Amino acid sequence: MTATDPVANLQTLIRCPSVTPAEGGALSALEAMLSPLGFKVDKVKATEPGTPDIENLYARLGGEGPHLMFAGHTDVVPVGDEAAWTHPPFGAEIADGELFGRGAVDMKGGVACFVAAIARYIEKHGAPKGSVSFLITGDEEGPAINGTIKLLQWAAERGERWDACLVGEPTNPNKLGDMIKIGRRGSLSGKITVHGVQGHAAYPHLADNAVRGILQLTQALMDPPFDAGTDNFQPSNLEVTTIDVGNPATNVVPAKATASFNIRFNDTWTAASLQQEILRRLDAAAAEGVLRPGRAPLKYDIVWAERPSHVFLTRNNALIASLSSAVESVTGQSPKLSTTGGTSDARFIKDYCPVVEFGLVGQTMHMVDERVAVSDLERLTVIYETFIERWFANAGL
Amino acid sequence: MTATDPVANLQTLIRCPSVTPAEGGALSALEAMLSPLGFKVDKVKATEPGTPDIENLYARLGGEGPHLMFAGHTDVVPVGDEAAWTHPPFGAEIADGELFGRGAVDMKGGVACFVAAIARYIEKHGAPKGSVSFLITGDEEGPAINGTIKLLQWAAERGERWDACLVGEPTNPNKLGDMIKIGRRGSLSGKITVHGVQGHAAYPHLADNAVRGILQLTQALMDPPFDAGTDNFQPSNLEVTTIDVGNPATNVVPAKATASFNIRFNDTWTAASLQQEILRRLDAAAAEGVLRPGRAPLKYDIVWAERPSHVFLTRNNALIASLSSAVESVTGQSPKLSTTGGTSDARFIKDYCPVVEFGLVGQTMHMVDERVAVSDLERLTVIYETFIERWFANAGL
Repeated sequence: MTATDPVANLQTLIRCPSVTPAEGGALSALEAMLSPLGFKVDKVKATEPGTPDIENLYARLGGEGPHLMFAGHTDVVPVGDEAAWTHPPFGAEIADGELFGRGAVDMKGGVACFVAAIARYIEKHGAPKGSVSFLITGDEEGPAINGTIKLLQWAAERGERWDACLVGEPTNPNKLGDMIKIGRRGSLSGKITVHGVQGHAAYPHLADNAVRGILQLTQALMDPPFDAGTDNFQPSNLEVTTIDVGNPATNVVPAKATASFNIRFNDTWTAASLQQEILRRLDAAAAEGVLRPGRAPLKYDIVWAERPSHVFLTRNNALIASLSSAVESVTGQSPKLSTTGGTSDARFIKDYCPVVEFGLVGQTMHMVDERVAVSDLERLTVIYETFIERWFANAGL
Repeated sequence: MTATDPVANLQTLIRCPSVTPAEGGALSALEAMLSPLGFKVDKVKATEPGTPDIENLYARLGGEGPHLMFAGHTDVVPVGDEAAWTHPPFGAEIADGELFGRGAVDMKGGVACFVAAIARYIEKHGAPKGSVSFLITGDEEGPAINGTIKLLQWAAERGERWDACLVGEPTNPNKLGDMIKIGRRGSLSGKITVHGVQGHAAYPHLADNAVRGILQLTQALMDPPFDAGTDNFQPSNLEVTTIDVGNPATNVVPAKATASFNIRFNDTWTAASLQQEILRRLDAAAAEGVLRPGRAPLKYDIVWAERPSHVFLTRNNALIASLSSAVESVTGQSPKLSTTGGTSDARFIKDYCPVVEFGLVGQTMHMVDERVAVSDLERLTVIYETFIERWFANAGL
């Protein structure tokens, strides 16, 4: 049987220079691993004016349910300062028990391990009673427009339905087994502009300082906190990411000021209810007027970033238990069920089926000398194989 | 006798295109008015590397005290959109009782009236028992480096001493007689930079958002008020004139933010004591840390603008009474004794003698169609002449 060695699989994938948006041979290499295992493989090209064409891959083994999806990406971020790497970023060299290369943990390593896991499963048990599919994009590190969203749509239009999904992104902060992600906070961004009246710093009563206004509005956004967190989520958090006025003259009171903000929000909110709350705070602060009395209401406008990321929480206990127990059986550690951190393609998949995330240790992702312990590749493969066994056992009940 | 007509004097001066830093013939024209009256006129050129050479003028009539100085400038701001003027900006045309031209009120008009006033005084009384001098710069509307400061030094080094000064800047907000300036607030500017730690918006606990820091520091500068005002001054007022971060990425927490501020301060403070208070506030806010706990002390630095303008208040009652009663006798209005508004060259003169300011109505200064009512020129001339009479009468007692 082929493809049962995660180290060999990963070396093959790393040696494909698939810096986003280039395919770099990575999806063809994956196809060459999956086809012999019985997977029906489709290469799916997605295009959009103004964005690079992207190659994606969908592969399915089996025709019946229950249907387990493994999701991930083979594109990688640029290598950065190549001269600073101690081993070539596309060389996949092993030194002192570590395998070096761009994508080693984010996330060709996860893909390599899942391929090895299903190969071993088939070797032991034959094809599962149900289906396993790979949903692999080449546009996760790029704009994510021609990637997972379109690949899901493409598959769903062909009748594909899934019962659960595992995303193989690196989820462990320090060591394998630390953390499973069972949801993600939402993300919402906006830009406020305050319109005041320009004037001379010596005659502030004749002007209306837009800086005072932007300070008042941003203060209203930052305080009080939006919530205290929920059972499964950290408190929602807002960061003002920039304030800009661009007034070079010390004796001029500026007429215009802008501020941008980003909120990572929990399941207290939907993107829509949070937008309402933000507008309520801004309008209340604007009605109070700025720090100088008599100038209310403060004039402002707000522009929302085009696509908020919606919050989600996976409540499929069988899925979570299958993964969590598999992690514990291999690592001896009960993984934390977390919803922390940034967004991932799981935010798109959750509209189709329950989704959890578990992969390698993320510490070197996006850095020079990205690398993975060879022993972690073997252990993650065993975790994935155990998960597949338990999930089909639970799903088949 | 020559130069007794303020309208003719002003037309002559306006027709000299003395847009700062150009002399434009204005000081020579002034010399031609003053020499026949008996003034000893010196043209004083001032230079400084990196700044334009500037012509200035100092003229003195008489050799004994008491010594009254009239101070002003003949340089003017640019005409702006010349096509928008209804009369040529250097044409000095009269229409419907108004004289049009750049500098009509700021402040060739004041110079023209004072020349006419002393000419009339001499015509009536002969030369005053004492001295009158003109201290006229060509660098008031420019950087003010080669102007009044250097001209005062030049004269003082030659033994010139003055007992009082009248600055002829436009001081009246609405109509002639509204307002005498008897002092000015100080002006102090600075720029704060907050140094945080860059990070990802999804992991704010690993970052230190410089925007939070700059908001906290600017808040500490704006609240509470520095004072409630004094007998002669408005409350000190701080305006944050710009905040800049320049972070284009919504998911990035920025490491650096800057804010500039300007304070117009009253005689509660000196520039030095105010700097101390500002540092005290900033250090206290920085020690509290930013809105996110555990990040104290906040790292910041401050750069002060090079030259603060010092606050001053003229306490020479005879000088104020001479001017105030002259204004009231001509306009029927008791002028407000004010310390409001921006800075003027009086801030330099106050180091040499008591100084007051009174001139035309400032409404059209620096604007297209700058103009002055011809009747105001005549009335201001009478005010100045009356002031000269009363000041010498008071000073001679």
